[in-house]
Amino acid sequence: MSKYESYIESNKDQMLEELIDLLKIPSISADPAYKGDVEKTAQVVANHLISAGADNVTVEETPGYPVVYGEKMVSPDAPTVLVYGHYDVQPPDPIELWDSPPFEPVIKKTDLHPEGAIFARGACDDKGQFFMHVKAFESMMQNGGSPVNVKFMIEGEEEVGSANLGWYVARNREKLACDVILISDTGMIGPDTPSITTGLRGLSYVEVKVTGPNRDLHSGLYGGAVANPINILSKMIGSLHDENNHITVEGFYDKVQDVSDEERAGMAKAPFSEEAYKKALDLSDTWGEKGYSTIERASIRPTLDVNGIWGGYTGEGAKTVIASWAKAKISMRLVPDQDPNEITDIFLKHFTKIAPSSVKVEVTPHHGGEPYVTGIDHPGYRAAATAMKASFGKDAIPMRSGGSIPILSLFERELGAKSILMGFGLDSDAIHSPNEHYGVRNYFMGIKTIPLWFEAYAEEMKG
Amino acid sequence: MSKYESYIESNKDQMLEELIDLLKIPSISADPAYKGDVEKTAQVVANHLISAGADNVTVEETPGYPVVYGEKMVSPDAPTVLVYGHYDVQPPDPIELWDSPPFEPVIKKTDLHPEGAIFARGACDDKGQFFMHVKAFESMMQNGGSPVNVKFMIEGEEEVGSANLGWYVARNREKLACDVILISDTGMIGPDTPSITTGLRGLSYVEVKVTGPNRDLHSGLYGGAVANPINILSKMIGSLHDENNHITVEGFYDKVQDVSDEERAGMAKAPFSEEAYKKALDLSDTWGEKGYSTIERASIRPTLDVNGIWGGYTGEGAKTVIASWAKAKISMRLVPDQDPNEITDIFLKHFTKIAPSSVKVEVTPHHGGEPYVTGIDHPGYRAAATAMKASFGKDAIPMRSGGSIPILSLFERELGAKSILMGFGLDSDAIHSPNEHYGVRNYFMGIKTIPLWFEAYAEEMKG
Repeated sequence: MSKYESYIESNKDQMLEELIDLLKIPSISADPAYKGDVEKTAQVVANHLISAGADNVTVEETPGYPVVYGEKMVSPDAPTVLVYGHYDVQPPDPIELWDSPPFEPVIKKTDLHPEGAIFARGACDDKGQFFMHVKAFESMMQNGGSPVNVKFMIEGEEEVGSANLGWYVARNREKLACDVILISDTGMIGPDTPSITTGLRGLSYVEVKVTGPNRDLHSGLYGGAVANPINILSKMIGSLHDENNHITVEGFYDKVQDVSDEERAGMAKAPFSEEAYKKALDLSDTWGEKGYSTIERASIRPTLDVNGIWGGYTGEGAKTVIASWAKAKISMRLVPDQDPNEITDIFLKHFTKIAPSSVKVEVTPHHGGEPYVTGIDHPGYRAAATAMKASFGKDAIPMRSGGSIPILSLFERELGAKSILMGFGLDSDAIHSPNEHYGVRNYFMGIKTIPLWFEAYAEEMKG
Repeated sequence: MSKYESYIESNKDQMLEELIDLLKIPSISADPAYKGDVEKTAQVVANHLISAGADNVTVEETPGYPVVYGEKMVSPDAPTVLVYGHYDVQPPDPIELWDSPPFEPVIKKTDLHPEGAIFARGACDDKGQFFMHVKAFESMMQNGGSPVNVKFMIEGEEEVGSANLGWYVARNREKLACDVILISDTGMIGPDTPSITTGLRGLSYVEVKVTGPNRDLHSGLYGGAVANPINILSKMIGSLHDENNHITVEGFYDKVQDVSDEERAGMAKAPFSEEAYKKALDLSDTWGEKGYSTIERASIRPTLDVNGIWGGYTGEGAKTVIASWAKAKISMRLVPDQDPNEITDIFLKHFTKIAPSSVKVEVTPHHGGEPYVTGIDHPGYRAAATAMKASFGKDAIPMRSGGSIPILSLFERELGAKSILMGFGLDSDAIHSPNEHYGVRNYFMGIKTIPLWFEAYAEEMKG
């Protein structure tokens, strides 16, 4: 048992209670209606950092939602770790599919979480995971302090593309100076299969609007003679994948780095059952780019997904209308070395080009993020491997994830530091979905593992 | 001036006031929330028929919304006219595009209505138009009575496919027995270009649902490996038209009657400006089936239009989700001799067949209606030509409309009578759209023309 572990054991109830209270605040950054709650959450996080023992804690204003900063400087000669996380959450829609209200956390047992999981929006992504760092830090502070300098930067706009974090980081380069960034906002392969994420996909997110007639029309009187924006938008979207499910946007694959046969062979060894995957999602078949496995399609290959579509009459019954416009939200996941701005540009050109002259097309970029890779020879990665081995009793598997944390490339550019992605969630935790949850055991495994990482990292940096 | 005209002139204000009051009741048959208002409207219509001088007025129950019946039998030897109309209206969505609330009628001048038009949902379709018949009937009753027997049948489910009118008509064949049916639920070519509708398109309306995974998924973790129901639905919809905008549903055109070159040449003579059409709708181009003109595409050719589509995240901002399902409402306008049930069946087969194995597809039929044609040699048509010539001072043009009144074929089958479509609306009246309106002059031209039709029809039947 590590010296922190007994402290954690004897404060378990409170550590759980505090997370549950944090989950009750609907800090939905995408919806302006929740502005007050997002801002309140920043204040609550700041208070937790102060109680945990951080110095110079401030709720720092940005053009958007604030960043919560705090630090513990143990020595100018010691290495410095920047802990990054986010206190904002995804919208809970579709709310009717939640078994319990998204902002009234409940603990229930599941097959994968026999000791119980906390069901709430943000339970895993990312309140449950960043809060592990606050509690791990508290454990260190109460048991002899941290072996390295620690800085916290907890933001409130990750779920809307970290719109102002670049602004903040650029203005605070010195304050945020660090040797490595530590983040828990990813998952591991299974409850007893620790893994560390070494690569993430990038993102380009756009909203498109196709406009036909200047008003809604009667589909009987005008149908057949006027371009129907929903039909046209559907056809345009349909044309974005070919018969092999390759993306047809011109130039889309130009900068995609092919992954070596060796690395693909390594990936194929990860424990994965296509049948279990299909069964868990109730699918008769998987789907995707010809020539790649399911794991490859979800990690080393770029994608194009419509995240939302709407237009015309969507109420009860039948309305015979030709809508004036139709809209869709479209996101593309990117892999090294695709550049999100470049991809947004070529998408815009392509989408405009394929539109028939009978409609008008608008493409509005939402946000983007660069794809990212950290090598397994990085001292921060080695520290994560050591810490996870110590707490799980098993070697952690390095893996690439299909998700995106758009800000990692910016950190590297502005702060010159790599990010270590040591996450404790599970794929089945339903982040971004109804009934998001986070295993109580995962939460405490994180709180126990993080101080071990700090010790191992201090060792790595000595040697 | 006809003997009715001075009566109409001196009762103008009241006739307008009564219509405005009727328009204030939101009788939206598609939305169960308005049940009370729909039923109230039936009662109000019955009271108007009684005041106008009808006998045996009853609000007749059906399995759905009631039918309002009333009659004036002048002689067992006289011919009998059944006036059909509907007191229900379309939903007002999208409500934010209305310049004034849809159920608070206001009179405003427009370019095409220099004497003012009434802006309200149902102003033209069909409250304003069926109510002309009530007021025209009152004018006849106050000035010597009707030259023929008159029956009224005003229903409350036309906008949801007249779901129970077949049930009602089949049970009341004797009561509804008639020589001809007179309907004002269509338009004319222009404010001073009277026309009479001789043909209508039929309708097949379905709702489709494409289901992928059993829950919403994170598009980063699953994107690329799981069929996205919105992408798939879009591709399926996109495939329903080929590069010449022919509909690709197998067997769709099998029963389409080709219109003779002669009739097409006649249609080409109707006053129509492609430029004005495009300008009115703010379109850079029209669109449609190769080989046909705009007028032909909107009247003698069948169509397939998506009336609504929805799925995934449609709120503000960006949510990186793969939706569990996507839905669309799709309607097909049909021409003689396409059968709506047959078309619904082949659509269902086709749509199921083109779905990839990675999704599930459901197709739910909403309602249908058969295409319809009345010859210009029918005595009811000749009476309409005489009446319109007398009131407009111009020959009326026979025309085919792209819209549907699904019940006409049923009337012919059950009652053995043809329908005469003498409507007074304009294409620009925005029926089924925001800012629906009906010209005050059109309303009174209708009230004046209808008694002339009754006189002309009595004459035709004598001869």
